[in-house]
Amino acid sequence: MSVWCFTGIVAGSFSGPPSPTHNLCYAVCGKGCRHQLKTRTLAQSRRVAVREDCMTISRRNFARLAATSGAVAVASPAIAQGAIKWRLASSFPKSIEGLWGAGPTLAKYVNEMSDGKFTVHPFAAGEIVPGLQVLDAVANGTVECGHSYGGYYIGKNPTLIFDGSLPFGLTPRQHNAWYLYGDGKKLMDEVYDGMGVVSIPIGNTGGQTFGWFRKELKSPADFNGIKMRVAGFGGKVLSKLGVVPQQIAAGDIYPALEKGTIDAAEWVGPYDDEKLGFHKVAKYMHLPGVLELEANNGLYINKAKWAELPVAYQAMLRAACAYALMEMLAGYDARNPKALNRLVAAGAQLVVLSPDILKALRTALEQVLDEEAAKSEQFKRVLENWRAFRAEQHRWFWIADARAEMSVYALTAQ
Amino acid sequence: MSVWCFTGIVAGSFSGPPSPTHNLCYAVCGKGCRHQLKTRTLAQSRRVAVREDCMTISRRNFARLAATSGAVAVASPAIAQGAIKWRLASSFPKSIEGLWGAGPTLAKYVNEMSDGKFTVHPFAAGEIVPGLQVLDAVANGTVECGHSYGGYYIGKNPTLIFDGSLPFGLTPRQHNAWYLYGDGKKLMDEVYDGMGVVSIPIGNTGGQTFGWFRKELKSPADFNGIKMRVAGFGGKVLSKLGVVPQQIAAGDIYPALEKGTIDAAEWVGPYDDEKLGFHKVAKYMHLPGVLELEANNGLYINKAKWAELPVAYQAMLRAACAYALMEMLAGYDARNPKALNRLVAAGAQLVVLSPDILKALRTALEQVLDEEAAKSEQFKRVLENWRAFRAEQHRWFWIADARAEMSVYALTAQ
Repeated sequence: MSVWCFTGIVAGSFSGPPSPTHNLCYAVCGKGCRHQLKTRTLAQSRRVAVREDCMTISRRNFARLAATSGAVAVASPAIAQGAIKWRLASSFPKSIEGLWGAGPTLAKYVNEMSDGKFTVHPFAAGEIVPGLQVLDAVANGTVECGHSYGGYYIGKNPTLIFDGSLPFGLTPRQHNAWYLYGDGKKLMDEVYDGMGVVSIPIGNTGGQTFGWFRKELKSPADFNGIKMRVAGFGGKVLSKLGVVPQQIAAGDIYPALEKGTIDAAEWVGPYDDEKLGFHKVAKYMHLPGVLELEANNGLYINKAKWAELPVAYQAMLRAACAYALMEMLAGYDARNPKALNRLVAAGAQLVVLSPDILKALRTALEQVLDEEAAKSEQFKRVLENWRAFRAEQHRWFWIADARAEMSVYALTAQ
Repeated sequence: MSVWCFTGIVAGSFSGPPSPTHNLCYAVCGKGCRHQLKTRTLAQSRRVAVREDCMTISRRNFARLAATSGAVAVASPAIAQGAIKWRLASSFPKSIEGLWGAGPTLAKYVNEMSDGKFTVHPFAAGEIVPGLQVLDAVANGTVECGHSYGGYYIGKNPTLIFDGSLPFGLTPRQHNAWYLYGDGKKLMDEVYDGMGVVSIPIGNTGGQTFGWFRKELKSPADFNGIKMRVAGFGGKVLSKLGVVPQQIAAGDIYPALEKGTIDAAEWVGPYDDEKLGFHKVAKYMHLPGVLELEANNGLYINKAKWAELPVAYQAMLRAACAYALMEMLAGYDARNPKALNRLVAAGAQLVVLSPDILKALRTALEQVLDEEAAKSEQFKRVLENWRAFRAEQHRWFWIADARAEMSVYALTAQ
């Protein structure tokens, strides 16, 4: 390769998720070409600079080079062509197309609506930054925007969980209702604003299953000592019942289950879980998925980059995100039933959690929420608002839509 | 008013829905100003031309005038300024803001995204054409686009019901799944294409309540002889149980109930129904709303106008419609719970339909569907596809999301 790749490269390596100990490293240049590097250990991949296959240059080096050479026009194609080119770092691998797909859909719409004047180039988890570092990468301007899940960053700020998903929480519809017609948007905007980020809902998986276990869970005592991959506040809740929760990226879950590093895992639902192969090593799929009635995803945008954006392009992002959200949810809903049939045919066993387990989980959740509220004024303020909204929504759906659905299914779903 | 209003006026009158016998007539000129006319009887308002308050001109007269004067530049601001200006005829009055709101939201987004180069001006039911004639108005080019509900036009083509809502049918999520990831879009596009229309989902009310009755319904026999305002296939299903179904626009339902012209009515749910005042004359609100788990709305676009539209503007319409859909559903979900509380406080009685009523309704539905299929090859083809998709979706939601919701609500909604 003889061309220099100026834009789109940050010094450092880019890791994908094929193994818990080694990363398949590669770099992506500003032209969108992807350059595969050697497999490295995690420690190596955190240190190493991208040098193979493509002559790259760090941001700092580039700034120096630009100042002392004629490279500015090459460096800023956006300015030269009157176009705006953004990179989107996704928290998800391309193989999990339901989640990954929101980035390409956003890109397609924005590109079409702007006649190619505003382009967004999506990069999979690990291509620019690891999947769980997207929020930081957006906040510090490594990328203009990212697609991620608030629940990944509760170590940074637990209040972000309200933008993601909570056990015994809101459904996708209830989340949108809180966000658009309750105080959800205002409250979440405050949280993200404090991090230098603007967030727009860009996707939702719908309800998730409770998770895959090697043994059937029959009572609350059965949770004790289980090591489980579980994201968000589900981990905090389960830890009250003796679970040791772990947050592991998609591609690393199966090897961990296989090796016995963990005993159980939840990811999303039948369609994704089937691909990841959980049923082969932990065949008991537990329901109902009370830990996640939804998982709302966000388009994270660097605050300064958002402010620079023309109003027309801001509106395009909002509208394209709404389309992407609808599409992601529809994709999961359409694919999950068929995947469930295949899983059951492949030997998966469905287990319905007992009422005493559900009750114990719910009690644990409210304890966790109260504990978090005692630690953070911001969390407390959002929690109070969210709890009041939840109470109203749950009562209404219990009387109306969910009851109507179950009445219908009792006659049609046998 | 001394200016002439050239654009946006079609000869004839424009009626709103305040009474079944009289219309409050007004005209809207191309500049968006609304000119109120005298109250007229329905018969008068169908005949009368708009002359008061604003000097108007019919399309035919305008063409004559334009040909013989210097008025062309005024007549075609779109061409003069390189802009595209569309009118949107809504099937809904402004007072029902949940449904009405989709038009203004679409208009806002398209205007912002195009920097004002593509504008859509929404007109309420009756301002250009009556609410139930929007499909025709779009098909014949009276307006470039409209916002309506497929179920209003089943007299024209019963297959349109699959784009709206069916008893024991799909929820909003299931509808989107069928539309985007099943064959829904392909099949519905064929139906609309045959009418010279392109349709894009633009809104959904979510699940609706079963309806308001003067007496509690205790058994299937209680339906016999009831005259009920009910839209779509709900009417066909109820007529199997002896109901005399009637399709009446929003504003005319209350007076009909009050006078006893009808005995029962369904419109949407607590928020809208409260405004329309049904509980004051028929206090028994029946649940669950198995006749409508959703009501999907469409943006109808004249096929030739769609074909003329730049790809960028087509994409804007698709994305803006997705936003409007999310917003409408969120609005209903947020507002209905509070409205239900107010209705109950005002004396409304909630009645849950018995299992034998639900079973009778479901049996009637499948009979109605089979009868329609026997009459139309197109209906039969769509029905087979839809039934297969429904079976898969209902089984999945019965196992997963709806069950998870009910498990959660059993602990949170008391």
